[in-house]
Amino acid sequence: MASKSKFETLKGNMLIAQSGGPTVVINQSLVGAVLEARKHKGIQKVYGALHGIKGILNEDFVDLGKETVGNLNLVAQTPSSALGSVRKKPTPEDCAKLFPILQKYNIRYFFYIGGNDSAETTNIVYQEALKANFAFRCFHICKTIDNDLRQNDHTPGFGSAAKFVAQAFMGDNLDNRSLPGVKINVVMGRHAGFLTGASALARVFPNDGPHLVYLPERPFIMEKFVADVKGVYEKLGRCVVAVSEGIADESGTSIIAKHVKEVDSHGNIQLSGSGALGDILADAIRATGITRVRADTFGYLQRSFPGVTSEVDAKEARAVGSTAVKFAVKSHENGSVAIQRKKGKAYKVEFVRVPLESVAKETRHMPDEFITPAANDVTKAFIDYARPIVGKLPAVGRLKAVAVKKKG
Amino acid sequence: MASKSKFETLKGNMLIAQSGGPTVVINQSLVGAVLEARKHKGIQKVYGALHGIKGILNEDFVDLGKETVGNLNLVAQTPSSALGSVRKKPTPEDCAKLFPILQKYNIRYFFYIGGNDSAETTNIVYQEALKANFAFRCFHICKTIDNDLRQNDHTPGFGSAAKFVAQAFMGDNLDNRSLPGVKINVVMGRHAGFLTGASALARVFPNDGPHLVYLPERPFIMEKFVADVKGVYEKLGRCVVAVSEGIADESGTSIIAKHVKEVDSHGNIQLSGSGALGDILADAIRATGITRVRADTFGYLQRSFPGVTSEVDAKEARAVGSTAVKFAVKSHENGSVAIQRKKGKAYKVEFVRVPLESVAKETRHMPDEFITPAANDVTKAFIDYARPIVGKLPAVGRLKAVAVKKKG
Repeated sequence: MASKSKFETLKGNMLIAQSGGPTVVINQSLVGAVLEARKHKGIQKVYGALHGIKGILNEDFVDLGKETVGNLNLVAQTPSSALGSVRKKPTPEDCAKLFPILQKYNIRYFFYIGGNDSAETTNIVYQEALKANFAFRCFHICKTIDNDLRQNDHTPGFGSAAKFVAQAFMGDNLDNRSLPGVKINVVMGRHAGFLTGASALARVFPNDGPHLVYLPERPFIMEKFVADVKGVYEKLGRCVVAVSEGIADESGTSIIAKHVKEVDSHGNIQLSGSGALGDILADAIRATGITRVRADTFGYLQRSFPGVTSEVDAKEARAVGSTAVKFAVKSHENGSVAIQRKKGKAYKVEFVRVPLESVAKETRHMPDEFITPAANDVTKAFIDYARPIVGKLPAVGRLKAVAVKKKG
Repeated sequence: MASKSKFETLKGNMLIAQSGGPTVVINQSLVGAVLEARKHKGIQKVYGALHGIKGILNEDFVDLGKETVGNLNLVAQTPSSALGSVRKKPTPEDCAKLFPILQKYNIRYFFYIGGNDSAETTNIVYQEALKANFAFRCFHICKTIDNDLRQNDHTPGFGSAAKFVAQAFMGDNLDNRSLPGVKINVVMGRHAGFLTGASALARVFPNDGPHLVYLPERPFIMEKFVADVKGVYEKLGRCVVAVSEGIADESGTSIIAKHVKEVDSHGNIQLSGSGALGDILADAIRATGITRVRADTFGYLQRSFPGVTSEVDAKEARAVGSTAVKFAVKSHENGSVAIQRKKGKAYKVEFVRVPLESVAKETRHMPDEFITPAANDVTKAFIDYARPIVGKLPAVGRLKAVAVKKKG
């Protein structure tokens, strides 16, 4: 790395893009990066590529220098990738085409907002730049509601999605208490159970649901699930269940995988946008003779619902974007900006540069201490971990409900 | 009816209960009635029956006089029937058992919060009281997210559910714009399309979704649906669709009815708590060759999600509850409190007493002027009708997105 003063002299244009599943705060990161870029003379034009790598290959660029601060701040609080997203991993042929384009537009600063697949893409782009001996800085800006990026205590997008899930379960628990039965809710999260676990934040009063929580980190055994639900139902007369869309049997075969057809270009099976898993599980419970059984699949609302945003999440998403630009201008050629939690009682985080390859490819799972030994709930350690990221939930009450003595 | 002064002398206890599908503001009506009751000397004890008529038959009463105002106000803002609900219509045998119970507890004021089935129940209870020559006042307090009660401009619960649906479509439209494809969202509403129509409030910018809206008031023809979606997809490269769970074919057979088994004691088929309809429609679109097709069923979140409440709805739900008590104490033996809109530019409503039988049994549908001739969208008249009931939605923005000239 060059000395600091020399490091700061790289002049050229900037390009930023968004990839993968959108989140409610993904535009906070975009706007954080764009507004930070305006502070640095080395960054000349600020371009956005539409629909990620696809937009770079098509040279579909927009001039983000033409956006007012007011409109950018409105976009920042708007869910879902404002530049458009893509589920495309560049092939070697794509990469060969990328560099002439970047050179043509004199792109010297590149930022890619996304999950682990996007970190991998960013790394491929960087390696190509190295080979081409092209002076170039690039950063991955983390996001994912799944919260499954390595090196990160948590990722932007998770807190708001978790807030949605927690509020949804607060309401659904109240609904189930009012009209008792078995209610199964399927929550997003392909390989990591963090978002499904966030359902447990819904508990306020004794016997509040979710009463059972099934995570992709543990094998899902249908017989055990049915027995668990029957047990709760016999005790409470009702049962609310949180199930990850990614649950898999002991052989690792996803319960839903047998029922869907689509696979994206990263090899991921499409788990959302279908009610099949919930219906399969509900049928298994109905077979026991319990009659009022319902299943809902929360679906895309979890990652796109406006107005249910964790303040901490929004603030951190903005900071991750601006920090990426600072790092690229002042101190690092490449990397990913990770959120790491400081030790201590009060919730505090720092934003650190980590190597791209340390975030790319593999994902992170829930640590064992977050899952109960019975594999059907989360622990207090998880609640303590998640609560400050999610922030305040709506206040709900219960009647004192003093029973009137029956008259004989 | 007795003269006013004589009318106000009926002394006795009050019983209130909740029935049917819960709403986000149903406890506003409960608390409105309970707090109003405290102002009237004729009303002595204020009891709540747990789980509606079932709780009356079991004499499961709670003493609402033991609740603090602070806790009642917290309960008021909590979604879903705090007293518990029921989907039970009393049989003639139930009714024969009801009156000895009401007499035993000296219940002279009875309030039943619910939809049209509950108005019918209230009427049966009143008729039985008449036969028994039992001095008795009873009111139905309207609620239903379906917004399908006759005599009402709209009903408590609808505004908040409509707000949830509108926000959900705002987010989902942004998600679909970011990762284009066909997205189908199934919305609650057995016979009336008001809630599905509320999806149209999500539109902010040109070409915002939902692009198509299918209501139970018009026959659903699968071929026309597929052609409509293909048309939008070819024009915009994407398509967001709102579909009522209650859509039925030309013969009146519900599209979903063929796929579900449960029927409640009012003869209603269970349409929610299953992803089947969305999956059927998505498969029909996939058969055309469009690959990225998703379906979500919003499910119970629509009627239970805390923190997404229409302020107008909450205020009106409270007023309907307190007005029912005022009417029962001061001027009427029985009835249902209806919300009627005053003519004029500014949004204003009044709460009026209507006969129980005018609300019971049949439901109301969307009037023709709310549905476009092509039967795949709502009109501006509907938007103008719904907007003041739903209130303010979150602000969302779009990038100006000035295209950068491609370099040759």
